[in-house]
Amino acid sequence: MVPRKDPARTMKVDPGDLSILRPGERIDELIHPGLRIIQHEDMLKFSLDAILLARFVTLRGEERVADLGTGGGVIPLVLAGLRTVGSVSGFEIQPAVADMAGRSVQMNGFGSKIEIHCGDLRQMPREYWGGFDVVVSNPPYLTANEGKINPKPAVAIAKYELECALEDVLRAAAKLLRPEGRAAFVYRPKRLTELLAGLREAHFSPKRLRMVHPRDGSDAGLVLVEAVLRGRPGLTVLPPLIVHTADGGYTDEVKAIYGRPYPE
Amino acid sequence: MVPRKDPARTMKVDPGDLSILRPGERIDELIHPGLRIIQHEDMLKFSLDAILLARFVTLRGEERVADLGTGGGVIPLVLAGLRTVGSVSGFEIQPAVADMAGRSVQMNGFGSKIEIHCGDLRQMPREYWGGFDVVVSNPPYLTANEGKINPKPAVAIAKYELECALEDVLRAAAKLLRPEGRAAFVYRPKRLTELLAGLREAHFSPKRLRMVHPRDGSDAGLVLVEAVLRGRPGLTVLPPLIVHTADGGYTDEVKAIYGRPYPE
Repeated sequence: MVPRKDPARTMKVDPGDLSILRPGERIDELIHPGLRIIQHEDMLKFSLDAILLARFVTLRGEERVADLGTGGGVIPLVLAGLRTVGSVSGFEIQPAVADMAGRSVQMNGFGSKIEIHCGDLRQMPREYWGGFDVVVSNPPYLTANEGKINPKPAVAIAKYELECALEDVLRAAAKLLRPEGRAAFVYRPKRLTELLAGLREAHFSPKRLRMVHPRDGSDAGLVLVEAVLRGRPGLTVLPPLIVHTADGGYTDEVKAIYGRPYPE
Repeated sequence: MVPRKDPARTMKVDPGDLSILRPGERIDELIHPGLRIIQHEDMLKFSLDAILLARFVTLRGEERVADLGTGGGVIPLVLAGLRTVGSVSGFEIQPAVADMAGRSVQMNGFGSKIEIHCGDLRQMPREYWGGFDVVVSNPPYLTANEGKINPKPAVAIAKYELECALEDVLRAAAKLLRPEGRAAFVYRPKRLTELLAGLREAHFSPKRLRMVHPRDGSDAGLVLVEAVLRGRPGLTVLPPLIVHTADGGYTDEVKAIYGRPYPE
C-alpha cells in the first residue's frame, strides 16, 4: 500500500493568519509554496491520493468541476492553484469540515473560483444537475464492516462507507455531469471490480486507467480511473506510476507532481 | 499493443513426424525445446497471450484444468509440459483445429494427460459441469463489428466474437468449475471493464490482476486476470509485466518464461 504519511509540512504561520484558525487546527503547506490548507488534528489529512487525482484528471480550459466529498478542500485548492479551470465546487457532508475548507479557500484568495457546499450528495439538489463538465472524487474506500472503524468520527466518515457508499458517489456524479462529461476517481485496487462495474451501471464508460505502485515490483496501492458519461466503450491502461525509488525517496515523476505547477 | 509476431520457430522435422501432418501444416517449437506444436498457415498461430496465461494461472498440484477455446492446444501443451497438473481438457469449436490440437497432444506423448473435446461451449454437456478445479481461457477479444474481419475463417472465429462472446466463455467457466474453483483469462485492457463486470455477473470474484506492457512507459497491451467462483471480494493488482527492453529484446522475465520450465 502507498504509505499514508501526510505529505504536508507544518508551516510557520504569521499572526494575521492565525485569526482564521479554530481550536485544533493548523495551516499546512500544500505542494506548491504559494498554496496553503487548514487541517485539523481530528479530521482526515489530505494525502497522496488527492494530489495524484488532481494531476490525473483531464481538463480542457475553463471547465466547471465538482469534487464529491471534498474534505478540507485539497482537490479544489490544487485545481484552482495549479491547473486551468473555470470553477470548482466542493461538496462535503460534514459541516465542520466544509467550514474549514471554506476558510482555506478564502485564505488562498480563491473565493471567486471555488465554492464549498455542505450537504449530502445522496440528495443532490436539482439545481446542480447537469451543471458540470467534470466530476472528481476520492470516495471512502472501506466498507462499513471492514476492520476497526477509526475512533475519530470525522476521519471515519471520510474513510468508511458510513454516510455514503461508492454507488452513491457514482450516481451523484452521473446526475451532476452534462452529457459526455468526465468523472475521475482515485480508489483502492482491492475494489477495482466494484468501481468499473459500478461505473458501467451508472452509464459511464471507463476510458483511462492508471495503476499506482508504491515502488517498483510491488502490488498497486492506488488506482486512478477516468470515465465518460454515456461515452463509447474502450479503456486505455496507461503506464504505471511508481511512487518511491529503491532508497525510499520519491521518483522523479512524483517529485514533479509535488514540487512545481503541473504542465497542462 | 504487444506485437502479434508468432514467437514459435519452425523446426527441422524428421520424416517420421511428417506423417501426422495435413496439407498446410507445419511443426513449430513451443518454448521449451522438448515441446512441439502443429500449426496451420490458415489458422491462428499461438502467441505471447497464451504463454503468459499458462504462466500466470495459479495451480495447486494435481488439479483438473479446462481450457476454453483451446485452438491448436498451446495452453494444454504448456501446462502438461512445464507445470504440474492432474489433467487438462481443451475445448474447441472448430473440428479441423481440434483435430490438429489432438495430433499435437499425441506427438508430444501427452495422451494420458490431455484430452481435446470438439464442441460449442455455449452448449456444454452436463457431464462436465462442476468437474474442474481450474478454467483458463484466451477468449476472442474483438467484437463482431470491430474492424475488418480476417478473411481466413478459422482465424476470424478465434479472434472475433462470431461463435462465442465473452459472456458465453464466462458462463461456461462458471458451469465447469467446482465451488470456489479458479478461472484465469488473458484479455485486452480495452475491454477490462467488460471482463471484470462480466466476471461479477457470472458470480466470480476477481482476485489477481496483472497488466502486461509491451515496453516501459507504454500503455498496457494485455491484461491477465484470475478470479474465484463465489470467492470473497478483494483484488490484488500485481506489479506490471514488461515484455521488451528499450533495445527491442525480451526482458529477463519474459526470457525466463520462454526459455526454461516454470518455477512452481
